[in-house]
Amino acid sequence: MAKVAIVMGSDSDLKKMEKAAQLLEEMDITYEMRIISAHRTPEVAKEFAATARERGVQVIIAGAGMAAHLAGAMAAHTHLPIIGVPLSGSPLAGQDALLATVQMPPGVPVATMAIDGSRNAAVFACQILALQDKEIERRLLEFRQNMAAGVQEKDKKLKK
Amino acid sequence: MAKVAIVMGSDSDLKKMEKAAQLLEEMDITYEMRIISAHRTPEVAKEFAATARERGVQVIIAGAGMAAHLAGAMAAHTHLPIIGVPLSGSPLAGQDALLATVQMPPGVPVATMAIDGSRNAAVFACQILALQDKEIERRLLEFRQNMAAGVQEKDKKLKK
Amino acid sequence: MAKVAIVMGSDSDLKKMEKAAQLLEEMDITYEMRIISAHRTPEVAKEFAATARERGVQVIIAGAGMAAHLAGAMAAHTHLPIIGVPLSGSPLAGQDALLATVQMPPGVPVATMAIDGSRNAAVFACQILALQDKEIERRLLEFRQNMAAGVQEKDKKLKK
Amino acid sequence: MAKVAIVMGSDSDLKKMEKAAQLLEEMDITYEMRIISAHRTPEVAKEFAATARERGVQVIIAGAGMAAHLAGAMAAHTHLPIIGVPLSGSPLAGQDALLATVQMPPGVPVATMAIDGSRNAAVFACQILALQDKEIERRLLEFRQNMAAGVQEKDKKLKK
Amino acid sequence: MAKVAIVMGSDSDLKKMEKAAQLLEEMDITYEMRIISAHRTPEVAKEFAATARERGVQVIIAGAGMAAHLAGAMAAHTHLPIIGVPLSGSPLAGQDALLATVQMPPGVPVATMAIDGSRNAAVFACQILALQDKEIERRLLEFRQNMAAGVQEKDKKLKK
Amino acid sequence: MAKVAIVMGSDSDLKKMEKAAQLLEEMDITYEMRIISAHRTPEVAKEFAATARERGVQVIIAGAGMAAHLAGAMAAHTHLPIIGVPLSGSPLAGQDALLATVQMPPGVPVATMAIDGSRNAAVFACQILALQDKEIERRLLEFRQNMAAGVQEKDKKLKK
Amino acid sequence: MAKVAIVMGSDSDLKKMEKAAQLLEEMDITYEMRIISAHRTPEVAKEFAATARERGVQVIIAGAGMAAHLAGAMAAHTHLPIIGVPLSGSPLAGQDALLATVQMPPGVPVATMAIDGSRNAAVFACQILALQDKEIERRLLEFRQNMAAGVQEKDKKLKK
Amino acid sequence: MAKVAIVMGSDSDLKKMEKAAQLLEEMDITYEMRIISAHRTPEVAKEFAATARERGVQVIIAGAGMAAHLAGAMAAHTHLPIIGVPLSGSPLAGQDALLATVQMPPGVPVATMAIDGSRNAAVFACQILALQDKEIERRLLEFRQNMAAGVQEKDKKLKK
Repeated sequence: MAKVAIVMGSDSDLKKMEKAAQLLEEMDITYEMRIISAHRTPEVAKEFAATARERGVQVIIAGAGMAAHLAGAMAAHTHLPIIGVPLSGSPLAGQDALLATVQMPPGVPVATMAIDGSRNAAVFACQILALQDKEIERRLLEFRQNMAAGVQEKDKKLKK
Repeated sequence: MAKVAIVMGSDSDLKKMEKAAQLLEEMDITYEMRIISAHRTPEVAKEFAATARERGVQVIIAGAGMAAHLAGAMAAHTHLPIIGVPLSGSPLAGQDALLATVQMPPGVPVATMAIDGSRNAAVFACQILALQDKEIERRLLEFRQNMAAGVQEKDKKLKK
Repeated sequence: MAKVAIVMGSDSDLKKMEKAAQLLEEMDITYEMRIISAHRTPEVAKEFAATARERGVQVIIAGAGMAAHLAGAMAAHTHLPIIGVPLSGSPLAGQDALLATVQMPPGVPVATMAIDGSRNAAVFACQILALQDKEIERRLLEFRQNMAAGVQEKDKKLKK
Repeated sequence: MAKVAIVMGSDSDLKKMEKAAQLLEEMDITYEMRIISAHRTPEVAKEFAATARERGVQVIIAGAGMAAHLAGAMAAHTHLPIIGVPLSGSPLAGQDALLATVQMPPGVPVATMAIDGSRNAAVFACQILALQDKEIERRLLEFRQNMAAGVQEKDKKLKK
Repeated sequence: MAKVAIVMGSDSDLKKMEKAAQLLEEMDITYEMRIISAHRTPEVAKEFAATARERGVQVIIAGAGMAAHLAGAMAAHTHLPIIGVPLSGSPLAGQDALLATVQMPPGVPVATMAIDGSRNAAVFACQILALQDKEIERRLLEFRQNMAAGVQEKDKKLKK
Repeated sequence: MAKVAIVMGSDSDLKKMEKAAQLLEEMDITYEMRIISAHRTPEVAKEFAATARERGVQVIIAGAGMAAHLAGAMAAHTHLPIIGVPLSGSPLAGQDALLATVQMPPGVPVATMAIDGSRNAAVFACQILALQDKEIERRLLEFRQNMAAGVQEKDKKLKK
Repeated sequence: MAKVAIVMGSDSDLKKMEKAAQLLEEMDITYEMRIISAHRTPEVAKEFAATARERGVQVIIAGAGMAAHLAGAMAAHTHLPIIGVPLSGSPLAGQDALLATVQMPPGVPVATMAIDGSRNAAVFACQILALQDKEIERRLLEFRQNMAAGVQEKDKKLKK
Repeated sequence: MAKVAIVMGSDSDLKKMEKAAQLLEEMDITYEMRIISAHRTPEVAKEFAATARERGVQVIIAGAGMAAHLAGAMAAHTHLPIIGVPLSGSPLAGQDALLATVQMPPGVPVATMAIDGSRNAAVFACQILALQDKEIERRLLEFRQNMAAGVQEKDKKLKK
C-alpha cells in the first residue's frame, strides 16, 4: 500500500520526477508512480484521484509542464493534500507551469514547489507524514541533520 | 438549441464574459451561458463538455482567471473546438491565466484569445460557424465592413 | 484543392511548422504550405489571405517569431479562422511572438496556440473541419483515443 | 493549544492574512496569529519556529511580501510543514514575493499558495490535519460540497 | 504639406498620441494625424504608407496598443523611417505592445520609443528632420537647452 | 558639509526620495539633495559626481525611473559608493528602472535597493558611514532595536 | 568622413555589431566603428557624441548589453538621431538591455531596435539618410526588392 | 583578520563567487570565504553574521541563487553593509534570485549587484573600504584607470 503517489503528465517527465521517488526510498516511504494526463486521460486522472484516499494514499505529488493542470485536476477530485511540481522544458523555462500550478482559485489549493523541485515535493510529503508517524519524523530530522552536516563539511573543506 | 456555449469559472467573471454573449446576439447566433468550475464542479464540467456535441453545440468559449484550467478541462472531454479567454483580475493581471490557457500540451489545443478578449472569442466562433452557414458568413462580412467603416468615420472626424 | 493553408514568415521556420503538415497528412487532410512575410512581402500576404476563401481554404495556420504579425495580417484580409503559432528562436524565447500573436485588438481575433505549438494548430484545424465532415470527425476521435492509449501504455510500462 | 500558526511579517499584512484565520474558525480549528519579521525580529522567528512542534502546532502558515523570506526562515528552524503565502503590495504585484517564496533550494521546501492566497493556505492546512482527524475531514468534505453547491446555485440563477 | 504623419489604431489612443502633435506644433513642424487600423482598415494603412513619400511625408509616427502591428504595417509599405510608440492600456500595461513593436524581423526596422512615449517620438522625428533643416536644428537645440534649464531651475529651487 | 548626497532625475521623484532625507535627519547625518538628470543635464551630473569626494561626500544615493541611468552616470565619474534606487511610475511599475539600475557591467557597480526603496538607501548609507563613526553606529543599532521593538509591540497587540 | 558611427560598450559586442557594418558596406555608406563605454570611458563617450555632428556624422548606432546606458549617454550629448541596439548575453537574455535602452525619459529619445538587431539599426540609418540622398534611397529600394524576392524564391522552392 | 567576508549558499556557487575573491586579491584586501546556508545551516549563518563585526569584518558579500535569502539572513543579524549577489542557475536564469535579494523590506537593506555580478560586489566592497583607507583608494583609482585604458586600447585596435 503506497502512502505517497507520484503522478506526471508524460513519460518525458520521468527523469525529473524520479528524484521524488529516490527521496521517498531514502526515507523508506512506500509510493506508487504513475503517468496520467489531465488532458489526454482525464477519466484515469479523475478515477485515480477520487479513489486515492480509500487506497491508503495520503499525499499526491503531481508534476507537469507548460499549462500544467495535472495537480489542479487531482485537487478537484480529492481532499488529500496535493503537492504540485511545475516542470521546465517549454521555451518559457517553467514560468508557464509555475503560474498554472500555483495560481489556484479559492477553495482548491495546490502546494507548489520550485520549478523542477520534485525532490523537495517528496521532502514536503515526509513533513506531512511525520505529523502522525514518529519513525518518519525521526528520519526527517536525521535527513535535516545530514543536510546541515553536508554544508558544514564543504565549508570546512573550503576554509582549508 | 444553442450553437455556442459560453462557460466561466465564477459569477465574478460574468461582466467580462457577457461581451461574448452580446456579440453572438448581434450576430443572431443561439448560445447558452453557464457557470462551471473546473476545480469546484469538475463532474459538471466533464458532463457538460462530453455531451455538448450531441446537444448541438459547435463551439465552446471558456473564460477563466488565475491558473485558468477551464478551457483545458473542456478540451479534455470533447473534440469540439474550444476557445479560451484568459481573464485578468488577479495581481498578475491575467499573465497567469494567459499562460495557463495557451500553453496546452500536444494533442489538446485551446484556441486562446487576448486577456479579457471575450468579445473576440465570439467573433472567432462566428468565423468557425460561417464556414458552414452562408447567413452567418454574410453577417460576419457585414460586421467587418461596419468595423472598418467605424474606423474610417473616426478618421474623418479627426481630420476635421 | 487545399482545405488548410500553412504559412510561415521565413524558411527558417520550416522545421517547426512541418509538424503541422505531418499531422494533417496523418489525418488525410489536404493542405498547402507557403513562405509569406507580413513585412517583406505584404502584397503576397494580402493576396493570399484575400483569395483563400474562394480557393477553398477553410482554415489558415500562420507561424511567425519575434514581433509576429503574420497571423494578424492574414486576419486583416479574410474572415476565415486564423490559427496563430508563436515561434521561439529570438532571445526572448517566443514571449515576444506569443504576445504579438495573442493580444489582438477587438474584432480581429487570432486563435493562438502554445509557443512552437504547430502540431496543435493542425489538431485545432481538424476540430474545426470535423464540424462539417464526419470522416474527419471519425479520424479525430481515433486520434484522441490513440493519444489516450499511448499515455496508458506508458503508464502500464512504468508500473512494471 | 493552537494546531495552526499564522505568521506575517508586518501588521500591514493583517487584512490579507485574516482570511486564513476566518477559514480556520469556520472549520473549528484552533490557531494562533503572530507578527514576526524574518529580518527585523529574526530571533523571535527562530524561537517561534523551533518551539512550534513542542507547543502542539502542526502546520505554519507564513505570509510575506517583497523579498518574502518569512516562510523560508520558518522552514529553516522546524520540520513542520510550512505553507507560504506570497503577498502583493509592492510595485511588482507579488511577483517578487512569489519567486522568493516558491523557489526554495533543495531540502527545505515551502508549500506555496497563489499570490494573496491566504484562505487557500488555511484550506490546505485543513487537508493536512484531516489526514489524522476524522472530524476535520468531515468538515472539509462538507466545505467542498458547499463550495460545489454554491457554484451550481449561481449556475442555475444564470440560466434563469 | 505635412512633414510628419501621426497615425494611431483607434480614437481611444488620441489622448496619448496628441502629445506628439503638441511637440511638433511647439517646433513649428507640419503634421497630419490619422486613425488607421492595421487590422480593421488594412487597405487604408497600405495606401497611406505607400503614398506617404510622394505626399511629402518624411517620418511616420505610429502608436498602437496590445499586439501593436500598426508601425510594422507602415514599415512594410514604405521605406520612410517609422517611429513606433507602444501604448499601454491593456492588462499587460504595454508590455505586449512594446514587444510587438520593437522585435521586428530583419530588414524592416521600427524605431521604438518608450511605452506611451509619443512626445519622444516627435522629438526623434525632429532629430531626423534637423539633419536637413537648419531652422529645425536651431529649434531642437533651443528645446534641449530649455529642457536643461528647466531641470537646473528645479534643482535651484530644491536647494533653497 | 554633506556626508550623503541624494540626487534624483526629476522633481516628480521628490516625494519618493524625501524618505531618504527623512531617515538621514532621524540619524542626524548631513546631506544635500539635488535634481540632476543624466540625460538632460549630463554636464552637471558629471561635475557633481567628479567633485563629490573633495566636497566631503562619502556616499551618493541616486533615484531614477524608467531607463534609470542616473546612478550609473554617477558611478562613471566617481569611485565613491553609489546606491541606486529604481523608481516606479512608468507603466512597467519600476521593472525597467530596476534592471537599468542593477544590471551594471563589470567594474562599475551600483548598490541597488528595492523599487522605491529610498528609505533603505539611507539606511544602507548609514551602515557604510557607521564603519568609521561610532556615533552613527550607535544610532544605527538603536534604529534596529527600535525597529525590532516596533514589530514586537504590534505582535503583542495582535495577540490581545 | 563617416556618415554613420557604430559604437559599442565592449569588444565582446563586436561580433554582433559587425552586422551593422556589413549592411552599411552593402549600401556603400561610410561609417566608423568604435569601442566606447558609457561607464568606463565616460569622457570619451561625451567627447565622441558632442563632436559627432561637426565631424559629419549623421546617425549614431549604439549597441550595449545589461544596464545598457551607451545609447542614452550618446543622446545626452548630441541632438543627432541615436539608434539603440539592446544586446543579449546576460542571464536575462537582453530583457535588461531592452528596457534600459527603450524606456528613455521625456526629451531624450533613443530609437530602439530588436534585441541583437544591429543589422536593422543599419537599415534604419539608411532610411534616415535616404531622405536627403537619392542614391541611398535607390539602393534602399533595391535592398527591399531583393529582400522580397528572396522570400518569394524560397516560397517557390517550398511549393516544389 | 579578514576585512571582507564572502559567503555562498552552496559549493556549486564557488566558481561564480571566486571572482569576488580574485578581485580582492588583486586589490590586496584580506578576505575569508565560507559556505553557509540560510536554510540548511541557519545557526551558522546567524553566528557568522552576528560576530562578524567583532572579528573585524567590514563588509559581507553574500551570493545565492533561487529564493536567495542568504544576504537577507546576514542583514538580519548584523548592521554591517551586506552586498547581495543573485546567482543564475535555476530555470528562471536568476530572475528569482534577483527579486529575492533586492526587494528587501524597510529597515534591512541589501546592496544588490547584477545577476552573477560577484566581481562587482568585490569592487563595491573596495569602494566602501576606500572611504577610510587611502591605500585602497589609490588602488581603486588605479583599477579604474586600467579599466578605462583597457577599453581605449581595444578601441584603438578596432580602429586599425
